[in-house]
Amino acid sequence: MGIYKFTIPEIIFGRGSLEYAGVCARQLGASRIFVVSDPGVEEAGWVDRLFDILRREHLDFVYYNDVVPNPRDYQVHNGAKLYDKTGADVVLALGGGSPMDAAKGIALVVSNGGSIKDYEGANHVKNPLPPTVFIPSTMGSESNISQFTVITDVDRHIKMTIISRTLVPNISITDPVLLGTLNRDLLIAPLFDSLAHAVESYVSPIANPFTEVQSLKGLDLLIRHIRPALDTLCLDDLEQLAVAGTCSGMAFTNASVGLGHALAHALGGMYDVVHGISHALLLPSVMRYNLPACTKKMATMGRIITGKVLDTDEATAMAGIEALEHLRAEIGIPTRLREIVPDKTMLPTVSQNAVNDICLLTNPRPATWKDILNIYYGAW
Amino acid sequence: MGIYKFTIPEIIFGRGSLEYAGVCARQLGASRIFVVSDPGVEEAGWVDRLFDILRREHLDFVYYNDVVPNPRDYQVHNGAKLYDKTGADVVLALGGGSPMDAAKGIALVVSNGGSIKDYEGANHVKNPLPPTVFIPSTMGSESNISQFTVITDVDRHIKMTIISRTLVPNISITDPVLLGTLNRDLLIAPLFDSLAHAVESYVSPIANPFTEVQSLKGLDLLIRHIRPALDTLCLDDLEQLAVAGTCSGMAFTNASVGLGHALAHALGGMYDVVHGISHALLLPSVMRYNLPACTKKMATMGRIITGKVLDTDEATAMAGIEALEHLRAEIGIPTRLREIVPDKTMLPTVSQNAVNDICLLTNPRPATWKDILNIYYGAW
Repeated sequence: MGIYKFTIPEIIFGRGSLEYAGVCARQLGASRIFVVSDPGVEEAGWVDRLFDILRREHLDFVYYNDVVPNPRDYQVHNGAKLYDKTGADVVLALGGGSPMDAAKGIALVVSNGGSIKDYEGANHVKNPLPPTVFIPSTMGSESNISQFTVITDVDRHIKMTIISRTLVPNISITDPVLLGTLNRDLLIAPLFDSLAHAVESYVSPIANPFTEVQSLKGLDLLIRHIRPALDTLCLDDLEQLAVAGTCSGMAFTNASVGLGHALAHALGGMYDVVHGISHALLLPSVMRYNLPACTKKMATMGRIITGKVLDTDEATAMAGIEALEHLRAEIGIPTRLREIVPDKTMLPTVSQNAVNDICLLTNPRPATWKDILNIYYGAW
Repeated sequence: MGIYKFTIPEIIFGRGSLEYAGVCARQLGASRIFVVSDPGVEEAGWVDRLFDILRREHLDFVYYNDVVPNPRDYQVHNGAKLYDKTGADVVLALGGGSPMDAAKGIALVVSNGGSIKDYEGANHVKNPLPPTVFIPSTMGSESNISQFTVITDVDRHIKMTIISRTLVPNISITDPVLLGTLNRDLLIAPLFDSLAHAVESYVSPIANPFTEVQSLKGLDLLIRHIRPALDTLCLDDLEQLAVAGTCSGMAFTNASVGLGHALAHALGGMYDVVHGISHALLLPSVMRYNLPACTKKMATMGRIITGKVLDTDEATAMAGIEALEHLRAEIGIPTRLREIVPDKTMLPTVSQNAVNDICLLTNPRPATWKDILNIYYGAW
């Protein structure tokens, strides 16, 4: 074993924990809080609820909601200008991956200056960020746990991955009650993103005992609770999924992800495909591609997914991959890439973008742009 | 599920990670480091090695080594005076539980004033501590991970447990190579302390999914590697034990411990018994006492310890407890309390002290001082 780091935020988890938002911001020294969310979270009523909580704590705040899925570089820059203008001192994000990633970008730019594009890649952030409280309204990105943010460069049609220890929020508050206002359709993409985090972090070359245990716990809970959660939206199952997301987040923030994320980022940058849907489409293909490089670990996951051990590791692993494809079909989401991306002429360019994605560095099997194009074509 | 916190330090783990001691202290703003260790760690050569690393980084430091097992209140106060006098700004502890706990006490007193006795119990620490880097030379206390410190009040013959979020070190560096300079006898007590952390945190009423997975991972690794590690002192096994200790630490710092620690603290305060040896003596009795209150969880542990599932949860749990007794006997450590504490006349007073220990609050089954006295007598 080599030398590993394992870093996570202070985690507060549980039904009703949203109530601690103000207390946590105050604990971090807040006098004026910069709240980042989006119209979807507003509609669900959680932004007003948060404002009530902050007012109850006599905390001043500024609100920024110009955030779309696959948040844009200019949205980060506009947010940073507002932060500076209003003299805010703590960043509080409430929402899915988009507001959380945008909030990280804003916190990064206000403390380090320049453009968000200056920080693409790993470890280019020099100055500490303002204190941060992150409250996910859904799962999938696990941005509330991770040292990652992903921002779209609109000029280049590229989703830039930015990785830095400074991007780990100070405090993560996960209140599973917030998942209760999502409907079945809104839950699917985040669930497949979490699944991809669990799977890809487990087979990462920099996985270690502290991340592996979290990857497998996340995978196990996802497999057991995805179906009942989607069927009934029952809070008990949603809560277990929120635990799973947190576990997957602890795993991938420290072990990173792989080819699947490189593929999904490249698709998202070019076609604005919802990130989790890319994973639903591509994860089984990615697992098949990686299988020869990590057969034993794939078999361990196969055993967790199917509950069965077959004659060989390869067979057990393949059964797991097929079970994921079955799960995908059963849920009724697109199974072919052409349903999302009707025109495949840009896929060679997308493959070139994917091969430059930093996540590819932590894939267990090397992949050229031709390998990647083959995976896209195979899934099309 | 209720609302839970899960907090751990930034963890650096791996062979050779001691080399990062200076870099980490500098990252925390060190200009003069207050190093706490003890004569045993000096003899093993690790203190000189650390000094070389700090000198290589051109870091100034002050050294304090007046620390004994079950570290005393006056040792904390003397250390705090030296810290203030020398203008140190970062605390670096290198050693087992004693130097690490003493270092926490020193950091607490220099930033919060008064006597270490003022902070006994949970959440009485108001001011943040100076930045801390903790490097365990052995396992067992997991003080490098935890929000606990235990300091002996010499007047009252009591080991005071102090619990505070502020006592979680900033950075924990676990280099399993350091375990390689221990001999078999020195390893036994720490291993049983880790075992007690895994077991007691798992059945704690405030255990949660994030701590439970760590408790079971720690237990599993301990059971599989204690025998080969003690037989051969092979680094591969020691490394797995260091992983186990870290996992147990992540569990108990967030889920706390129970009756076993209350019993061990009370014995340590009165008779200066080595903490881990108290656990070796008492853990099976404590598990038997707790069994009716957490049969299912005890059965889960029994399955991990023995690899078997018997007809009933109770039988599986009992088999696990008996296997621990067998392990203890096989290793050749005292199995009767009278071998350590020949005079039992003080045991009623010790029981009174145990019943006031804060760890009893998180035991799954309530215990009166008479229950506790019966456990001591039964083990005597």
